[in-house]
Amino acid sequence: MSLSSLPQPINPPQRLLMGPGPINADPRVLRAMSAQLVGQYDPAMTAYMNETMELYRGVFKTANEQTLVVDGTSRAGIEAALVSLIEPGDRVLVPIFGRFGHLLREIAERCGAEVHVIEVPWGEVFAPEAIEAAIIEVQPALLAVVHGDTSTTVAQPLDELGAICAQHGVLFYTDVTASLGGNTIETDAWGIDAVTAGLQKCLAGPSGSAPATFSTKAVERIVARKSIEAGIREAGDAVTAHPIRSNYFDLAMIFDYWGPKRLNHHTEATTMLYGARECARLLVDEGIENAVERHRLHGSAMLAGVQGLGLAVFGDLAHKMNNVVAVMIPDGVNGDAVRGELLNDFGIEIGTSFGPLHGKVWRIGTMGYNARRDTVLTTLAALEAVLRRAGASVTPGGGVGAAYEIYADADRAVRASSGAGA
Amino acid sequence: MSLSSLPQPINPPQRLLMGPGPINADPRVLRAMSAQLVGQYDPAMTAYMNETMELYRGVFKTANEQTLVVDGTSRAGIEAALVSLIEPGDRVLVPIFGRFGHLLREIAERCGAEVHVIEVPWGEVFAPEAIEAAIIEVQPALLAVVHGDTSTTVAQPLDELGAICAQHGVLFYTDVTASLGGNTIETDAWGIDAVTAGLQKCLAGPSGSAPATFSTKAVERIVARKSIEAGIREAGDAVTAHPIRSNYFDLAMIFDYWGPKRLNHHTEATTMLYGARECARLLVDEGIENAVERHRLHGSAMLAGVQGLGLAVFGDLAHKMNNVVAVMIPDGVNGDAVRGELLNDFGIEIGTSFGPLHGKVWRIGTMGYNARRDTVLTTLAALEAVLRRAGASVTPGGGVGAAYEIYADADRAVRASSGAGA
Repeated sequence: MSLSSLPQPINPPQRLLMGPGPINADPRVLRAMSAQLVGQYDPAMTAYMNETMELYRGVFKTANEQTLVVDGTSRAGIEAALVSLIEPGDRVLVPIFGRFGHLLREIAERCGAEVHVIEVPWGEVFAPEAIEAAIIEVQPALLAVVHGDTSTTVAQPLDELGAICAQHGVLFYTDVTASLGGNTIETDAWGIDAVTAGLQKCLAGPSGSAPATFSTKAVERIVARKSIEAGIREAGDAVTAHPIRSNYFDLAMIFDYWGPKRLNHHTEATTMLYGARECARLLVDEGIENAVERHRLHGSAMLAGVQGLGLAVFGDLAHKMNNVVAVMIPDGVNGDAVRGELLNDFGIEIGTSFGPLHGKVWRIGTMGYNARRDTVLTTLAALEAVLRRAGASVTPGGGVGAAYEIYADADRAVRASSGAGA
Repeated sequence: MSLSSLPQPINPPQRLLMGPGPINADPRVLRAMSAQLVGQYDPAMTAYMNETMELYRGVFKTANEQTLVVDGTSRAGIEAALVSLIEPGDRVLVPIFGRFGHLLREIAERCGAEVHVIEVPWGEVFAPEAIEAAIIEVQPALLAVVHGDTSTTVAQPLDELGAICAQHGVLFYTDVTASLGGNTIETDAWGIDAVTAGLQKCLAGPSGSAPATFSTKAVERIVARKSIEAGIREAGDAVTAHPIRSNYFDLAMIFDYWGPKRLNHHTEATTMLYGARECARLLVDEGIENAVERHRLHGSAMLAGVQGLGLAVFGDLAHKMNNVVAVMIPDGVNGDAVRGELLNDFGIEIGTSFGPLHGKVWRIGTMGYNARRDTVLTTLAALEAVLRRAGASVTPGGGVGAAYEIYADADRAVRASSGAGA
C-alpha cells in the first residue's frame, strides 16, 4: 500500500463471533462509545468514573473501595495487579491448568518473583487440597490462579481457596477475564484479594479496558510500596526499598487518580471508559445471576447441540465454563478448512486452539451479546452444513434438534413458574 | 449510589474542549469506533492493522517497518519504548524543560536506568550544544527527550539531535504526544530511533491508543532482548541476561504480533484500533503539512487574540507549539473561577497548569478537530465576557478583532494564490 491509495473508512464485514472471544459487542456498548468526549476532570467525567466503580462492585460482587478499570487489555489488568503486588524476590505460587496459567507465571517472573508452579493436564482442574499442600510447601506471598481458562474451557473452583489463603497468610489473586459475567464469581464471599478481567468475553464489549478490584489487604500491600514521582519528590522523602517497577501499572498512583484526590496519572481513555461503564450497567440491569443463568442456558444448548451432531467434546464437563465448549475435530477433517468455510460462507467465526490442543479441537463460545438462541441455532445449522461438505459423519438435524430440546425445557420451566405465580 | 438506582446511559454534556488535551474527537473518528467488531485474526482485522502501520508511517514521516500502536494511553507508549530499550543499569540522559521530562525520568528510573538530567527553566528549551555537551559527559545509552511539552507550551528543537546522537553512538527517543500532527516532525530526516504519541491532542481521537515507531537500530536492540514466553520455552533455549521487564510492554513480542508471524500476545483493542486508524487516515488525507499549517494558522489566531485582549503570554514564543498557548492570569483574577464560568456558562473548557505555573497561567489549546476558526473566535468572545465579569481590564473586542485580522490575512493569501493559479 502506498500513501497515494488512501484506505477506505472502517467498514468491517458482518461476522457472528462464536469463538472464545473477542465476540460481537452489544450495540448499546458501541453506542455509548460513540458519545463525544468531555475533559478528564469535568464533573460529568468524574461522575462517570465513580459510577463505573460502583457498577463493577456489583459485577464483581464486592464492597471493595478500589474497584476500577485499568487502561489496556485484560493482559494489562493482570500485569497491573502482579507488578503492584509482587516485590522482586517474593515467592508466588501459580497452579497451571491451561495457557493462561503459563501467562501468569511469565508475568510474575518478569516482576522478579520466585515462581513455583503446580500443573494438571489440560482439561482438568485442581482439588483445593492440592493447592493447599503446595501453599504449605512453597509458603508463597501470593497465590495467582486463573479462574476460567478458555484454552481448555474449564474453570478452577475458587470458593474454598480464599479461606485456605487467609489461613496461611497468602494473598489471593485471580484472573476472571474469560468467566466474569457468565459464571458465578463471588469476590468477597470467596475471599479473593485481587481480581482482574476484560470486556471482550461475557461483558459484551471490545478489548481495551480491564476492570479490576482489590481488597483492603491488597490495597495495604500496594500502598505501602508507593513512591513519589521523581519530579515532585523532595529531599528527605522516604524511599521504599522496592518501589513498583512500572509507572503505568502503579496501582497506588492509579488509586489516587480514581480516588477523591484525583491526582493526575495517565489521561483516562474516555471512550473505553464509556464502554466499560455501559458493559457493567447492562449486566447490573439484567442482574448478575440472570446473566450467569443466560450463559448457562445457551452454553448448555451449544454443548447438547455439538453432542447431538455426534461430535465429542474435550475437558472435564463438571468444571466446564458456561460460555465456551471445546469440540473434538473429527478424524479426517481439516479443522482450519472447516473454520474457513464457516467464516467465508456463513460469516461465522469459531476458534482454533493452543498448545497440546492445537489442531485437535475447535472452541465455540456462547458469551456476552452472543449468548442467544438465534446465534446458537444458526451456528449449529451452519456447522452441520460445513461438516457434511467436509465428508464428516454427522447426525442430520441432530445439532439444532438437541438445542431445540434444551430451549423447549427452558420455555416449559418459564411457563410453569409464571403459571405458578399467576 | 446504590445498585437500586441504575445509572443512566452515557449522555455527556456538550463541551468545547479548548484545553491542552484531551480535546473533542473528530466525529468521523467516533463513527469509525462505532463499527462492529471482527475477530483478531480475521483477514479484515489484519488488513486494518497493516493499513494502520502504513498510515502512521505517513504521519510520523518514516519508512520504519515497526510502526504500530500500543494498547493504552500515550503514557503506555512511553513506558513500552523505555522498558523495551533500557536494560537495568543503562545510563539515560533526560533533558527536562517541563512536567513531561520529569515523567520520562520517573519511568526510566523504574526501568532500572541510571538517569542523568539537565534542566532549563520552564518556558525555555535547550540549545543542541548543551545536549551534546551532556551526552559527552554522561555517555548515555539513550537520550530521552520530550518534543512538545504542554506544561510549558514550548517544543524542544529536535532536528539537530539525531546527528549528534548518531555521532556519539546514543539511541534517540522522543515523546511527541502533544505535538504530532500539529507541528513538523520528521522521524527519519531527523534521525530519531523511537517515537511515541497519543490520539488525544492534534490527532483528534480519544486517549487510549499510543502510535509509535522504531528505527532498525532500536528494533535490533529490542529484539536482542527477546525472551521466549515461559509456557513455550524449551530446555536449551538461550535466556537473555536482561529480558524486558514487562510482558504487556515487551515490544519484541508486540512486533511479532503485528508482523507476518501474528504471534498471539494481547487481544488487540479493536475499537481503539479503528479509532487510531481513522485519526491517521484523516491526517494523511488532509496532508500532514496542511494539518501543521492549519494548526499554525489557528494557533496564531488564538495567540493574537489573547494578546489583543491585553493578556500576557508565558514562554519562549520562538519555540511555542502551534497548538497551545499559556496565558498569564491577570492580577486579582481567580483563575479557577474564570475557568469554572467558561465551563458552566459557555460549555468551554480551558486548562489549568502544573508545577511552577500552577495558579499563574491558563493553557488554551487549538488542536485536532478543534483547530478551527469558529472554535477560536467563540473561545475569545467567551473569554472576554468572563474576564470582564471578573473585573479584569480587557480591550473590548480586542481578542476577536485580532484573530479576525489573522484570518483576513490568511484569506487574502489563499485568494492571491488561487488567483495566481487561474
